[in-house]
Amino acid sequence: MASVRNLLVFRQLFHKETSTYTYLLACKQTMKAVLIDPVLDCVERDLKLLRELGVQLVYGINTHVHADHITGTGKLKQALPDCKSVLGSKSGGRADIFVDQSERLKFGNLMLECRSTPGHTNGCTTFVLHDRAMAFTGDALLVRGCGRTDFQQGSPSTLYESVHSQILSLPKHYKLYPAHDYKGFSVTTVEEELAHNTRLTKSKEEFIKIMDNLNLPYPKRIDESLPANLICGVTDPVSS
Amino acid sequence: MASVRNLLVFRQLFHKETSTYTYLLACKQTMKAVLIDPVLDCVERDLKLLRELGVQLVYGINTHVHADHITGTGKLKQALPDCKSVLGSKSGGRADIFVDQSERLKFGNLMLECRSTPGHTNGCTTFVLHDRAMAFTGDALLVRGCGRTDFQQGSPSTLYESVHSQILSLPKHYKLYPAHDYKGFSVTTVEEELAHNTRLTKSKEEFIKIMDNLNLPYPKRIDESLPANLICGVTDPVSS
Repeated sequence: MASVRNLLVFRQLFHKETSTYTYLLACKQTMKAVLIDPVLDCVERDLKLLRELGVQLVYGINTHVHADHITGTGKLKQALPDCKSVLGSKSGGRADIFVDQSERLKFGNLMLECRSTPGHTNGCTTFVLHDRAMAFTGDALLVRGCGRTDFQQGSPSTLYESVHSQILSLPKHYKLYPAHDYKGFSVTTVEEELAHNTRLTKSKEEFIKIMDNLNLPYPKRIDESLPANLICGVTDPVSS
Repeated sequence: MASVRNLLVFRQLFHKETSTYTYLLACKQTMKAVLIDPVLDCVERDLKLLRELGVQLVYGINTHVHADHITGTGKLKQALPDCKSVLGSKSGGRADIFVDQSERLKFGNLMLECRSTPGHTNGCTTFVLHDRAMAFTGDALLVRGCGRTDFQQGSPSTLYESVHSQILSLPKHYKLYPAHDYKGFSVTTVEEELAHNTRLTKSKEEFIKIMDNLNLPYPKRIDESLPANLICGVTDPVSS
């Protein structure tokens, strides 16, 4: 029997314009696959890759309702009607499947644990693949940073609690894969972020002060992205 | 004893402006590290990462003399005098260490096999980490493509032979890491490229025809990049 490690097909994909990472995970025994945070502009690329790898997409997962790009889950579902969209239950958006703390998403012989990590948005979810010591943190934790907390129900206090209790409490060797990176990093570990995260190594009070004083510009694509992402993609034929 | 798989620290790093991948590989037992294809513009980022990971850079490796960006090996050597620059012996450039077919580069308890893969340039080298079934192909093989062959001693016939005899002859499950990607892919496998590479699945004759008719523009940064890269970076204090 193949070891668990050899069960996984894993691809990290990048959308350069918004510096967004999309993750393809598939079970080699059953060829069932999920995409985490697919981007609308890249759906044709991703569909071609799924075909070439011979895998079947069962879930199009969004870690949260993105403000900077439109999710690809709607278009993916049009092309692949058996695929279900997935979103955190507290997101306020629409999806085929809503996930809450501790729920599990199975694809073939692999399983993702869902961890609620609000603070960037209310519905933010981190997905953990314990078999491979990997976690997909969305915008809750970025390499050496974190997502902003100044819109979409953002709360620095909540984010601090989420990241420390749900992500940095994982074993030190766990690899953390963010939804974005702007400096060319692709992955980090719990150990690295506990030692070197520029914001989350501070006290909660200092962290809140940092986040409240970022004075970031209004996100460029938020006005088109949010309404579309609340329904899991502009063309999402949600079953319900 | 740690298994070979657990011996490796691996980071794929990206330079967005030129879509260049840099690879950090380090041996966990000895903390000796190499960087493959570091980019001058990213040296500060890479030095910080090396420090944070607590690893010691022993080799700054160039898969070839790049035409689109300036290598970081010279600046890295200034900051880390124990680091040696590495380049293929047929590159026509300068470096501390020249490598040829079948030579081995050891870093701690890990080892890279050097395979000459000319065709994009004469000195192109692919570095294979057999312990982890990974190969770093430079511009010889890209995901679903390959490097151009219309300047710098390029030869489609030679490239076709190199890729088929030295890269696609590796076991099918070997992961292939390119020096560039322009569509957001980060890795491929021998199996995938044997089936889906748009150019290298053709006959040699068809491949040559494709490559001879690409009509690509003159590389934007070649006039500054080539002279600097021939000496392994503008500030490279080569010992010899």
